Amino acid sequence: MKQSKLFGKTRKDISQDEKSINAELLTKAGFVEKQMAGVYDYLPLGLRVLRKIENIIREEMEAIGGQEILMTALQAKELWHQTGRWQELEPIMYQFQDHHGSQIGLATTHEEVITDIVKKHLSSYKDLPLYLYQIQNKFRDEKRVKSGLLRGREFLMKDLYSFHIDQKDLDEYYQVVYQAYLKIFKRLGLEAFAVEASGGAMSKQFSHEFMVKTEAGEDETVLCEKCGWAQNAEIAKVKSGEQCPQCQTIVKKFKTVEAGNIFRLGDKYSRPLKLQFTNQKGKLQEVVMGSYGIGLGRVMGTIVEASHDQDGIIWTETTSPYQVHLLNLAKNDKTQGKAEQIYKELHQQGLEVLYDDRDISFARKLKDADLIGVYWQLIVSDKQTELELVKRKDHQKILGDLNKVLSTIKKSVR
Amino acid sequence: MKQSKLFGKTRKDISQDEKSINAELLTKAGFVEKQMAGVYDYLPLGLRVLRKIENIIREEMEAIGGQEILMTALQAKELWHQTGRWQELEPIMYQFQDHHGSQIGLATTHEEVITDIVKKHLSSYKDLPLYLYQIQNKFRDEKRVKSGLLRGREFLMKDLYSFHIDQKDLDEYYQVVYQAYLKIFKRLGLEAFAVEASGGAMSKQFSHEFMVKTEAGEDETVLCEKCGWAQNAEIAKVKSGEQCPQCQTIVKKFKTVEAGNIFRLGDKYSRPLKLQFTNQKGKLQEVVMGSYGIGLGRVMGTIVEASHDQDGIIWTETTSPYQVHLLNLAKNDKTQGKAEQIYKELHQQGLEVLYDDRDISFARKLKDADLIGVYWQLIVSDKQTELELVKRKDHQKILGDLNKVLSTIKKSVR
Repeated sequence: MKQSKLFGKTRKDISQDEKSINAELLTKAGFVEKQMAGVYDYLPLGLRVLRKIENIIREEMEAIGGQEILMTALQAKELWHQTGRWQELEPIMYQFQDHHGSQIGLATTHEEVITDIVKKHLSSYKDLPLYLYQIQNKFRDEKRVKSGLLRGREFLMKDLYSFHIDQKDLDEYYQVVYQAYLKIFKRLGLEAFAVEASGGAMSKQFSHEFMVKTEAGEDETVLCEKCGWAQNAEIAKVKSGEQCPQCQTIVKKFKTVEAGNIFRLGDKYSRPLKLQFTNQKGKLQEVVMGSYGIGLGRVMGTIVEASHDQDGIIWTETTSPYQVHLLNLAKNDKTQGKAEQIYKELHQQGLEVLYDDRDISFARKLKDADLIGVYWQLIVSDKQTELELVKRKDHQKILGDLNKVLSTIKKSVR
Repeated sequence: MKQSKLFGKTRKDISQDEKSINAELLTKAGFVEKQMAGVYDYLPLGLRVLRKIENIIREEMEAIGGQEILMTALQAKELWHQTGRWQELEPIMYQFQDHHGSQIGLATTHEEVITDIVKKHLSSYKDLPLYLYQIQNKFRDEKRVKSGLLRGREFLMKDLYSFHIDQKDLDEYYQVVYQAYLKIFKRLGLEAFAVEASGGAMSKQFSHEFMVKTEAGEDETVLCEKCGWAQNAEIAKVKSGEQCPQCQTIVKKFKTVEAGNIFRLGDKYSRPLKLQFTNQKGKLQEVVMGSYGIGLGRVMGTIVEASHDQDGIIWTETTSPYQVHLLNLAKNDKTQGKAEQIYKELHQQGLEVLYDDRDISFARKLKDADLIGVYWQLIVSDKQTELELVKRKDHQKILGDLNKVLSTIKKSVR
């Protein structure tokens, strides 16, 4: 992509009311545009990152047997009434009347709907287990939205729902998803660890949150870096500076962001909505359920919170909007042609290249490249015949010809 | 995909209030599930078709320079107020108050928002032309929704917006999109033709609708099959049975479905929202705009309306949820193993296969296959050593070994 044609300009100043690092950097770098508080439009660069996150999550969902579906945002009150959540979720649910006088809600989550859909297609134990997921918009009228993409009023979410004959089968799959989540965050380039959200090890109903360490997180987590034991600081029995209950090492407190969560639902939804199956003895029984979420915009915001410096964003290898940012710092015509040639060559090699061909100062090109944060920067200049490959993260330089550059990049993107 | 594991069962009877052929067949075949009037959830088969339609449209948008973005559904009243459409669209717009007392609307379309976003990133004539598109949900509180997926209250739409320095540049790009649309419908397997929507050839502001012939369409169109001249029957000066104004052939009236539309907007939105650019003379000038839509669910419904028989859906080659439906009609163990082997082989050859491995009667398998409508059916039975490749459309049979079958299928999917 030639940057002279790319929609979405970098800018120095943005609205003062953007307090979060992620929204500030993503807006300045031209990835998103604020529509209203907690509601962001994705420009081409932002959408590319979102799609990369989406694809990694989708691959891992397919790998654990997930079948993709797509549910709707508009939902009738009646369904939510049956679980009591029409009232319960009223504080964060957009609820309104349509022109026919029907009460409509915008889905904050999809447990009710998925349970209702599965009911129409499930009869016997032979239909279980079943794993369904979607990547779809959620709407939540959050009171305070100061965290940019971390807490949106409209946001893309992957939600997986599992259906089982009993608690034992749920427990087994729960572990499978737990491992898949760790794999997803690792692939995204995030260091995440799981925290027991409530109840603790004694309860069979506990759920987990997946946390990422950041400078300015929404939560505080007590973590033992030796054995990985972790708990939300608010409910943890062990405080920072005290001994880990598992390995007696001293635990520390960290500011963290919740990047995903997994829940054992049991029959919370299957009972009121009557999702039953005929067991092997021919008797009707409630389906046992689990639900598992990851917010895509939240992941994007989390990466920016966890990976940036004073100059801008530092995308991870797998989430970088492009693999290479080619910077044309040439003045004379011959080198100009060389940059153009390299752009074509990189394309032919199947690499994703953002090519800064703009007629602006070199200083601004370098500044913009650091702000945008593509993983690799490749500099073509009159100064030297060799190319300069720069890793955005630490500005480490590698000099070499195109072959050397290509092999280095390809080794990194695998 | 093994059909025994596939979520979404076929069924004989569905709710009586589903009057349209597309919704009836798609529900019976397990592609969609009705959430409420005009609102449909997509099950795995349905989502696969939707993605295929999406990918074809996306490829053609990229081919004409479109840059993909993603805008939001939640929109503030203020913006819509400036163009007067907050009042104008009130009859079909979901409008409500959030918990902060702000007036919110769910986007029925995105002209206001895109104009506002572009304003923040456009300054000079050098930034033009610009082509932005998205594939995103629209919400419209339609009064009557008796047409299944043809007229939804929540539906995925591709909307492209173009921005130009003048009318001449818009006119040129308008023709480019016109041709791209014809290509899209052709690739989707639909016979579409363009109709002047209003004004006629004398006006420079006219727009076009792309119509597909179906048994039960929402519109009537007068069409000359010789030269392609066509107009909406309601506004056409020439009636069915009269002479075509272009070539004097007798024109006919057809029931049609509108599958897409393109509009010259001019400065309708850029003027009230003040989207201006500095021209080559240094003066401020309004940007000239165009907008171009295709509803994805509507396309899916249109394909079903245009292509089905008494037994079920007949997907086109490019929109079939799978390329091959492998039907295991074997009783003895040896043939069972053969079907399994062929399933693996087809997979290895990179083909998308739905494999009916269910323990049900052969008659039901054949019935379900016709209802689901995968383009090719491949039958393995004890009766014959050869495989039977059946084209769903006309049930034409080809007998042969796996190599012959593979080469026939591959020739068809290209």
